[in-house]
Amino acid sequence: MRKLSYAVIGTGAIGGYYGGRLALSGQDVHFLYHSEYDYVKANGLDVKSVNGDFHLNNMQVYNNTESMPKCDVILVCMKSTQNDKLPQMLAPIVKDDSTIMLIQNGLGLEQELAKSFPNQVIAGGMAFICSSRVSPGHIIHADYGALTTAYLNNKYDEETAEQIKADFKNANVPYTQGDDLNMFRWRKLVWNIPYNGLTVVLRTTTDKLMQNPASRQLITDLMEETVAGARACGANIKDDFVQKMLSNTDNMEPYAPSMRLDYDNHRQMEIRAIYSNPVKMAKAAGVHMHKVEMLEQQLRFIQENEYNAK
Amino acid sequence: MRKLSYAVIGTGAIGGYYGGRLALSGQDVHFLYHSEYDYVKANGLDVKSVNGDFHLNNMQVYNNTESMPKCDVILVCMKSTQNDKLPQMLAPIVKDDSTIMLIQNGLGLEQELAKSFPNQVIAGGMAFICSSRVSPGHIIHADYGALTTAYLNNKYDEETAEQIKADFKNANVPYTQGDDLNMFRWRKLVWNIPYNGLTVVLRTTTDKLMQNPASRQLITDLMEETVAGARACGANIKDDFVQKMLSNTDNMEPYAPSMRLDYDNHRQMEIRAIYSNPVKMAKAAGVHMHKVEMLEQQLRFIQENEYNAK
Repeated sequence: MRKLSYAVIGTGAIGGYYGGRLALSGQDVHFLYHSEYDYVKANGLDVKSVNGDFHLNNMQVYNNTESMPKCDVILVCMKSTQNDKLPQMLAPIVKDDSTIMLIQNGLGLEQELAKSFPNQVIAGGMAFICSSRVSPGHIIHADYGALTTAYLNNKYDEETAEQIKADFKNANVPYTQGDDLNMFRWRKLVWNIPYNGLTVVLRTTTDKLMQNPASRQLITDLMEETVAGARACGANIKDDFVQKMLSNTDNMEPYAPSMRLDYDNHRQMEIRAIYSNPVKMAKAAGVHMHKVEMLEQQLRFIQENEYNAK
Repeated sequence: MRKLSYAVIGTGAIGGYYGGRLALSGQDVHFLYHSEYDYVKANGLDVKSVNGDFHLNNMQVYNNTESMPKCDVILVCMKSTQNDKLPQMLAPIVKDDSTIMLIQNGLGLEQELAKSFPNQVIAGGMAFICSSRVSPGHIIHADYGALTTAYLNNKYDEETAEQIKADFKNANVPYTQGDDLNMFRWRKLVWNIPYNGLTVVLRTTTDKLMQNPASRQLITDLMEETVAGARACGANIKDDFVQKMLSNTDNMEPYAPSMRLDYDNHRQMEIRAIYSNPVKMAKAAGVHMHKVEMLEQQLRFIQENEYNAK
């Protein structure tokens, strides 16, 4: 088996953790940084992890993709709010046989990227992880860590896919390759749609939303709308999935999802990928997700008003 | 024509203004006060009004209904959040031929009261007025002022109704008596439902909601759902009414509706009358107002969570 080269685009809490694990296990990993570039180049990356702490020195770090080598596997871990810049950013590092894996939230992102890279292999990665960047070069990985992937249109090179799987497993990352990207994306939305938006609009955390009867019912309504939208779009999510998501969340620690963190830190929220795209696709398939659409509308108001005011 | 006696139950910005105008014009008006009782008994009521300032001294004020005389016309101007106490409160002042007029927001309140007072005449009053209580005994009436009424089931005494109309007109209050209470209530909801709830949930004012394309569309959606609900409940609101409400609001000064003021002052919000009752009635008539229901759910969360936390 050949040795693959990896690029990590957007080295935050997610990219830093997965890329860091790969580098720690001896893989050839190239990290793109922006604001943290100088710090990490000088001091390396520090990860406190429930699966064992580690520190990386002398990392292969870059502050633009023009100076990076072309890579076999490109892990895109930045926020989807910047995806319109992705084709230009990736152009210098993509080869004919590159695999581009979007470890991001939301729907339709792989299809969008495929317009710019029609010949490359494109995958979606669903990260089930609690990880946060606490300061430049410092990540805390608090819980979970599994990565589930599927390839767009199930188009991929068998040998490369097997090698990627082996590399992640060797790096101590639970890694599952499935065959239904659309289903994976929609299933993740069933959780992401209610909790991300409502914790922002109602300025609260998951536990408080679950305890109040009105908001708990609203979460259930939003999940059921999402399941109806998913089914119309060909992802036949099972009947008991909503109840499973609710009881999983009941058993979680009080949690502020990524969109709430983005809001608190005055960063752009991933409204388009998590809300607008699913609403649009479900509507085109004949299902009007009323309450999901209302959440989208409220988030757009918040994004455009409060951020401008600050 | 006989001289009618009036009671004002809940003498705030609305009751103080209308009751004050009636008293100023020489009518026999009895005011119920709670926290402001001592102040108003000593200092009277001061009203700064676009239609002319006035001050009332030696008012007939009370701090409980047991000490009040029975009255011909009872103007209920308190928040509908306290309406469960209304039957007990009104019992001492209601006569067989009393007219009870609910100058309140929301749907179904007259029907609820009729269960306790099946033989009395019950009316709904829709106040189109910008009026606020700025301190004990001090009201500022900034704009508008018209009162539109209709009688529940169109059941009323012709002579008394004519006298009430004459008394209000004589008191310089534009007063219209209509014959479709259900239509009036629903028409007012078309404005109240979007602006009251959204200014609370999104912590904003009417003008900002109108300027942002996403929230403007959401307002339109909420209005159209309300019109659909109204029609299912027999109030055949015309097609152009939504556009009229939107352009009226475009021409208004930036405005914080009553629910936003209640929220800001940690008072109970009128969720039941403005949201829960309409949602329930429309659903019973076959129309699911999804987004209105979501606003209700969000307001209940805010009411029950933030108020407890404070």
